[in-house]
Amino acid sequence: MNLREKYGEWGIVLGATEGVGKAFCEKLAQGGMNVVMVGRREEKLKELGESIKQTYGVDYKVVRADFSTPNATDAIFAATEGLDMGFMSYVACLHSFGKIQDTPWEKHEAMINVNVVTFMKCFYHYMKIFAAQDRGAVINVSSMTGISSSPWNGQYGAGKAFILKMTEAVACEVEKTNVDVEVITLGTTLTPSLLSNLPGGPQGEAVMKIAQTPEEVVDEAFEKLGREFSVISGERNKKSVQDWRANHTADEYIRYMGSFYQE
Amino acid sequence: MNLREKYGEWGIVLGATEGVGKAFCEKLAQGGMNVVMVGRREEKLKELGESIKQTYGVDYKVVRADFSTPNATDAIFAATEGLDMGFMSYVACLHSFGKIQDTPWEKHEAMINVNVVTFMKCFYHYMKIFAAQDRGAVINVSSMTGISSSPWNGQYGAGKAFILKMTEAVACEVEKTNVDVEVITLGTTLTPSLLSNLPGGPQGEAVMKIAQTPEEVVDEAFEKLGREFSVISGERNKKSVQDWRANHTADEYIRYMGSFYQE
Repeated sequence: MNLREKYGEWGIVLGATEGVGKAFCEKLAQGGMNVVMVGRREEKLKELGESIKQTYGVDYKVVRADFSTPNATDAIFAATEGLDMGFMSYVACLHSFGKIQDTPWEKHEAMINVNVVTFMKCFYHYMKIFAAQDRGAVINVSSMTGISSSPWNGQYGAGKAFILKMTEAVACEVEKTNVDVEVITLGTTLTPSLLSNLPGGPQGEAVMKIAQTPEEVVDEAFEKLGREFSVISGERNKKSVQDWRANHTADEYIRYMGSFYQE
Repeated sequence: MNLREKYGEWGIVLGATEGVGKAFCEKLAQGGMNVVMVGRREEKLKELGESIKQTYGVDYKVVRADFSTPNATDAIFAATEGLDMGFMSYVACLHSFGKIQDTPWEKHEAMINVNVVTFMKCFYHYMKIFAAQDRGAVINVSSMTGISSSPWNGQYGAGKAFILKMTEAVACEVEKTNVDVEVITLGTTLTPSLLSNLPGGPQGEAVMKIAQTPEEVVDEAFEKLGREFSVISGERNKKSVQDWRANHTADEYIRYMGSFYQE
């Protein structure tokens, strides 16, 4: 039984343009699902759509939306109305480096919208559909910074913690139904966003050595779907979190994460 | 050196009416600080204000505000303008029991406002003031549900995780300054809110046995202020979190927390 047979005709990837979101689109297409691809860069999304159409013979839709705006979901929900929806993944996340008080409020507001408000609207909307039809799946994407916190990058860690804990709760709520919900927590992943924010010098080199590819991450997410609520991606990340929790204080973990972006 | 000498003349407690918030007001007054008390029930806040004024000889202000509304902070910031501010604590949190998709969107929106938006506006506003004067302190309140997640009570856990990770990050950012920031994570605490939501039967009895008082919690928070970023309140809660992390999977912890409110 492929993904389409199990969950439905269409899946939606929120933050589909590149990296992990793009890998989700390809995985869905490979599983026979049509894909609604949402992001800011329409041209790049169309390219990706054409590519999966040619490779896997699936249909696609592109929705241009900026998750940082208050009404971002209007166009998204309109585009999926009437479609047989069976999958959602929220990949989008916005960050801004700097101390809380040095970051303009407009940026804080944009981060709250991407990481909390638009996320919740999407999760709520598609969970209503999936629960009513007792069929569907959700895989949301969190980050190790949501476990450790991320000084000088505070709202990113806090937003990823919100997504992590909200998705874990919902995964448990629907455990005995035919809706599968999971959150995957990523460590360093080789995405265009990582590469553009990589610290220089030995820290940057160390980061590159341990990074996973988007495809590895997405493969593990689908392997565990319906079997685990909360997955930390990759053996190295799993061990790292376990080691921090068992052998260090919360404050040590926070300071370590802070050391990457400290001013 | 008492709290007033160390941090400034006035402190603000957001969610001051009862329980932990009330204990914060009393602790500040005991330390010589005047207190701005913010909450929905003006009469109860005035009573508390009169009581600390009589007992400790400090001044107080009452601000009526509903943290779930989009403009809640207008009245709050207006009330503290021109005061010598030196302390803030965000205690407020809103929950609603039920599965994500069975909770009306208006309730989700109200929870996002209390647990994320109004929290961030307050934290940002007072951190700007404290950082500029290089003096002040913040103690925000989180919950064990922010560590474990809280099925059937999902946004409460997610909001408390947001507050936890945001405050941890900021605590680290200001470590080398004269601003002290801490988050305290509470387990079961004997508050009016706990008592009205207590599950019945043996589970309820077990909860009562392990509960801490608001005064114990607030005493520990101030003992650790300036020395730790992230504090789990009480020996029993510290051991419980350590045990879950070392000896159980994330999914087991999630299911255990879900067992309290499962429908």
